[in-house]
Amino acid sequence: MLPRDLAPLLEPRGVVVVGASGNPEKLGYAMASSLETFPGEVRLVNSRPTAGMHSSIGEAAAAGAVPDLAVMCVPAMHTASAVRESAEAGVGAALVCAGGFAEAGGVGVDYARDLDTVVAETGIRLLGPNTSGFFVPHASLFASFVPGVRRLGPGSVAVVAASGGVNHVLSFRLESDGAGVSLGVGIGAGQDVSAPDVLHYLVGHETTRAVILHVETVPDGPALVEAVATLAAVKPVIALVVGRNDVSEFARSHTGALATSWRTTRAALRQAGAVLVGDEVQAVAAATALSARRARVSARPGVALITAQAGPGLIIADALSDANHLPELGADTKAVLAGLLPPLTFQANPVDTGRPGETFPSVVRTVAADPVTDVLGVYAITEPVVDIVADVLAAGVADDVPVVMGVDGPASDVSSLRRSGRDTGIPVLSGPTQLAQGLAALADDAKSRAASREASSPAPVVPLWVASVAEGEWDEARGKDLLDALGIATPPRYRCADREAARRAWSTLDPPLAVKLLDASVLHKTEIGGVVLGVRTAEDLERALDDLETAGASEFLVESMAAPGIDLVVGARNDTVFGPIVAMGVGGIATEVLGDVAIRTAPLTRTAAVAMVEDLVARELLLGHRGSAPVDLEVLGGIVVGLGALVADGVVDEIEINPLRSTATGIVALDAIVLPAHKEVRTT
Amino acid sequence: MLPRDLAPLLEPRGVVVVGASGNPEKLGYAMASSLETFPGEVRLVNSRPTAGMHSSIGEAAAAGAVPDLAVMCVPAMHTASAVRESAEAGVGAALVCAGGFAEAGGVGVDYARDLDTVVAETGIRLLGPNTSGFFVPHASLFASFVPGVRRLGPGSVAVVAASGGVNHVLSFRLESDGAGVSLGVGIGAGQDVSAPDVLHYLVGHETTRAVILHVETVPDGPALVEAVATLAAVKPVIALVVGRNDVSEFARSHTGALATSWRTTRAALRQAGAVLVGDEVQAVAAATALSARRARVSARPGVALITAQAGPGLIIADALSDANHLPELGADTKAVLAGLLPPLTFQANPVDTGRPGETFPSVVRTVAADPVTDVLGVYAITEPVVDIVADVLAAGVADDVPVVMGVDGPASDVSSLRRSGRDTGIPVLSGPTQLAQGLAALADDAKSRAASREASSPAPVVPLWVASVAEGEWDEARGKDLLDALGIATPPRYRCADREAARRAWSTLDPPLAVKLLDASVLHKTEIGGVVLGVRTAEDLERALDDLETAGASEFLVESMAAPGIDLVVGARNDTVFGPIVAMGVGGIATEVLGDVAIRTAPLTRTAAVAMVEDLVARELLLGHRGSAPVDLEVLGGIVVGLGALVADGVVDEIEINPLRSTATGIVALDAIVLPAHKEVRTT
Repeated sequence: MLPRDLAPLLEPRGVVVVGASGNPEKLGYAMASSLETFPGEVRLVNSRPTAGMHSSIGEAAAAGAVPDLAVMCVPAMHTASAVRESAEAGVGAALVCAGGFAEAGGVGVDYARDLDTVVAETGIRLLGPNTSGFFVPHASLFASFVPGVRRLGPGSVAVVAASGGVNHVLSFRLESDGAGVSLGVGIGAGQDVSAPDVLHYLVGHETTRAVILHVETVPDGPALVEAVATLAAVKPVIALVVGRNDVSEFARSHTGALATSWRTTRAALRQAGAVLVGDEVQAVAAATALSARRARVSARPGVALITAQAGPGLIIADALSDANHLPELGADTKAVLAGLLPPLTFQANPVDTGRPGETFPSVVRTVAADPVTDVLGVYAITEPVVDIVADVLAAGVADDVPVVMGVDGPASDVSSLRRSGRDTGIPVLSGPTQLAQGLAALADDAKSRAASREASSPAPVVPLWVASVAEGEWDEARGKDLLDALGIATPPRYRCADREAARRAWSTLDPPLAVKLLDASVLHKTEIGGVVLGVRTAEDLERALDDLETAGASEFLVESMAAPGIDLVVGARNDTVFGPIVAMGVGGIATEVLGDVAIRTAPLTRTAAVAMVEDLVARELLLGHRGSAPVDLEVLGGIVVGLGALVADGVVDEIEINPLRSTATGIVALDAIVLPAHKEVRTT
Repeated sequence: MLPRDLAPLLEPRGVVVVGASGNPEKLGYAMASSLETFPGEVRLVNSRPTAGMHSSIGEAAAAGAVPDLAVMCVPAMHTASAVRESAEAGVGAALVCAGGFAEAGGVGVDYARDLDTVVAETGIRLLGPNTSGFFVPHASLFASFVPGVRRLGPGSVAVVAASGGVNHVLSFRLESDGAGVSLGVGIGAGQDVSAPDVLHYLVGHETTRAVILHVETVPDGPALVEAVATLAAVKPVIALVVGRNDVSEFARSHTGALATSWRTTRAALRQAGAVLVGDEVQAVAAATALSARRARVSARPGVALITAQAGPGLIIADALSDANHLPELGADTKAVLAGLLPPLTFQANPVDTGRPGETFPSVVRTVAADPVTDVLGVYAITEPVVDIVADVLAAGVADDVPVVMGVDGPASDVSSLRRSGRDTGIPVLSGPTQLAQGLAALADDAKSRAASREASSPAPVVPLWVASVAEGEWDEARGKDLLDALGIATPPRYRCADREAARRAWSTLDPPLAVKLLDASVLHKTEIGGVVLGVRTAEDLERALDDLETAGASEFLVESMAAPGIDLVVGARNDTVFGPIVAMGVGGIATEVLGDVAIRTAPLTRTAAVAMVEDLVARELLLGHRGSAPVDLEVLGGIVVGLGALVADGVVDEIEINPLRSTATGIVALDAIVLPAHKEVRTT
């Protein structure tokens, strides 16, 4: 479904300020002042009008062409009626900055409901309440009560912020340190116009080359994921998600909502194609780097770095090694560089030029032409005798490969290089760390697009016959039967209704055996003594059965123990915000205490599931770099796909395999917890 | 030992430029230009002198008072003789910027050795080679070949950087975004003047209020630790250590040395009292925040935050929760705030004021006066009608508690607030993240000083009788005997020379038993099948002994198995750079793959050892927040102290307990690996 048109809000031909004021302390004054630069018609309304004001919205609307946008500067209690009056006069959109609605509780909840009613009944688009507004510098349109916004020049990055304040923080920083602002919106309470609406709008927004999305809570996960995926297909999206730590009490007071899981939100947005950043400085560096051009699609993009000073170069290389890579340049490239540079400099990547000389453009051209170079970074401390931006431009490579520059020097020199970069399409950032962040963003964006190509394959589905058995209670034995049906290996085993059956199982299975209590109502058997391992002899078995009966067992699971290996944990469940999600990690402390878990929304493809391993800090262990046999990633990925499909198709509500053991001979599920799908109870 | 005097280098009364040049492409031109602002006498020397130049160092020195400092702008091959000539003329210090010495290899190694000889024979102080120099803005002294440095105004932060380039990066950023520069030095090759020398010099440097130390490699760990500890006792030290990732190949090409372990370096510097930062942006934020005043000493400092906009406030709170805390304000404080602020704002901490009104100074005063407030942060988006710095000053609290401000807005507004903050002693940073970094730095510094008070207790020593037994080879049984002697619990056990002894041990010990191969030459017994667990019956024992004999055992260790619990790993060893260090972590993947390890130099006190737990991501597990019994931290700390003393006193070279199990009834060492101290082999 396409969102209703945002043009009346974001591209108004005329604006009416409702509650305009001559008192500088009032919102109605600040808004009217900000709108002074707007070249379209701005009419002012106040019930006690002074010169040049209208006394009602109807009168203002009738004074010429009907304004598209009404900016509300009246108290919360009067807002809904003013919005209705605007809609009835033919106004297409309203901006409500005031607080005192749902987030305030009490009567504010009623005011918010009244607004909802007006929107539903009239079809007017409404931004807010509880936002500082929006601005479109290219149109000289500043509908914000922060006076400094009028100094924002036109730029190429759009900001879609949960918070009006953060919209301003990002926009001022884009103006002073980055690629400038094309459009900035604070969503605020988001009663009507939401972040997904604005993201959809930006798909066709010509002056916007990259988008920063700031997220506090997610009212509708699937809508946000869909909007990010749609937008990221045509221009880069940078996501700043707040809430890594528990700030929920403060966040709730601010937004009236519980903070959405930071991990899950980040995982879902990245999967949809967004580049993740950790703070506003990184957001601006990333968006600026991505505003000129994107790198070619690549699952493993290479960053090449040319640096005029080794010390800062080392900081850049160190920061880049985290998530990206600086591949060694080819032998041909190095041979050419050896002819261009003094012998003492490092030339493998980074290429350390020393002070840039006349061969600098040739060095840039040579490094850019190497097939490993998907993204090119250039760093230098400013020097009056060297125009480093001109040198990079002289190389003539910016159409072939994205080039980002990092510079340090006196503030005025850095600003002047930034301006010259902005004019010529070369993003210029300050300092080694921001350059590294910009380069990493270009690489992450290229990776994301590689992953999203793959993700567009048909989603897996669960065979009907598997779905048909998924009824009733799930003990471990039934859980493992379900895994068998999905083609996930489980140990040889018997469900034993009594001790005699257990003895028969013992005589058949290869020792050592695990003997367990079977009871769907017990989720954590180990904790109540419901699991006995290492059973070999008949004597061991009898002792085990005694112990399990003491723990309350009336049925037993007897199975062969798997060989030692790496214990993983995989699972799928319905997230309250994003719907079906899958998770993968290394068992025990790594996932439970250290939080080293990869998360994706489901359904997903096997390639996407295999790529989850790259998220794990513990990936070295899975890749066999720590002495143990490597995990069969294709099989592991297939298991994750299967669990995701089970939940996505509604067969079960939640499923976890813990541990899923990877041994020298393959992967085997040692325990399974299944929660049945919530189904309507049929009354007979 | 006090370092020899650096005054001739850093406070010269006169300077001579050796190799001065009229060609703008030459080092000798750039240096002479940079020195033009210097109010003392600057003489120029060139073997082919033009007007106003001298033809030799001797002649230049004789032309008036002997210059204190010679700036060398001659090629590497001529440098040593020029330095000798300078020393002989009475010059006290030399700056050598050129490269082409040891880092270049070949004949450069000889040039470097020649320099060492001159320094040793003449006592001249030498900064470099391979640096871009140094500057002292307060003295208008710029001995750097980067022309822009002359635009650095006097400030209050000193930079001591491994790299000349990074000295400039940090200094330009301190000038544009921070508290400005009091002195900036790039150590370069550090053949004579080292980072510890400059740190010692800064102890008495009046204009320096905080110091940023940039580290690439550490030639002398104990000297660096001692210098940081001495300086941090009187002014804050902020440490930026490069090399988190493997950049060793590039680093080696740059510095000619192997990168020092990033983790160990960071741990040692923090223990010495430095505040750690991750990049140059954070370094400048931290130093600026710390340049006005330090917080009172506290093991758990509280940060209070006042914010005019909730969205940016949430970003600050989120960033701060990582390592610090925002304690809830007291009931009295909240009662006063309720009278000062509108009812809808959040007032528990952060205190969200909304747009600052006339009660703002009272709000600041009220929050600052709360006993939980050790550090106060104030954030606002700039507004023309509100002078937020003046409002904070009006509160009159800056002498009681450190106050740091964060602002966003048009660049010129932010600069003007920063200047007004610099003039009035209130550090002003840009944006929520840098404010959070500044506040965290103040809190970390307060914590560091609390820890260093404790660390000055007498160091533990190993009893002589324990030291006396530490000879020869160490198998597990002897390792555990050593632990017993230190008072570290081990399981009941017998060393068994044959099967019959093992049977006697079996009949005595409580099952289940662990039966192990005993052989000092086998470090990893499990991997060769040298450990059998869960031995209960006589039959189990015979099978175990069979298996161990197959694995090559001629002697056995038979011991009772400990109850289940949390497996930790602790150890001590001699680090090649920092000497004796101790490490603590959770066993298995957490330490080995995820690198969640706490490190300290030894010897250390029990309180310091207990505090290591706070470094661990897995600390929740140790504190009993994950369902298991909490680890007895006093006992754990005592064990770490004991191991550290063993290595620090030279009793053993390395010792590791892995696993060290914490059970419901106490902590017990389940395995011990000991490497004997390297001792001279006595020939008879």
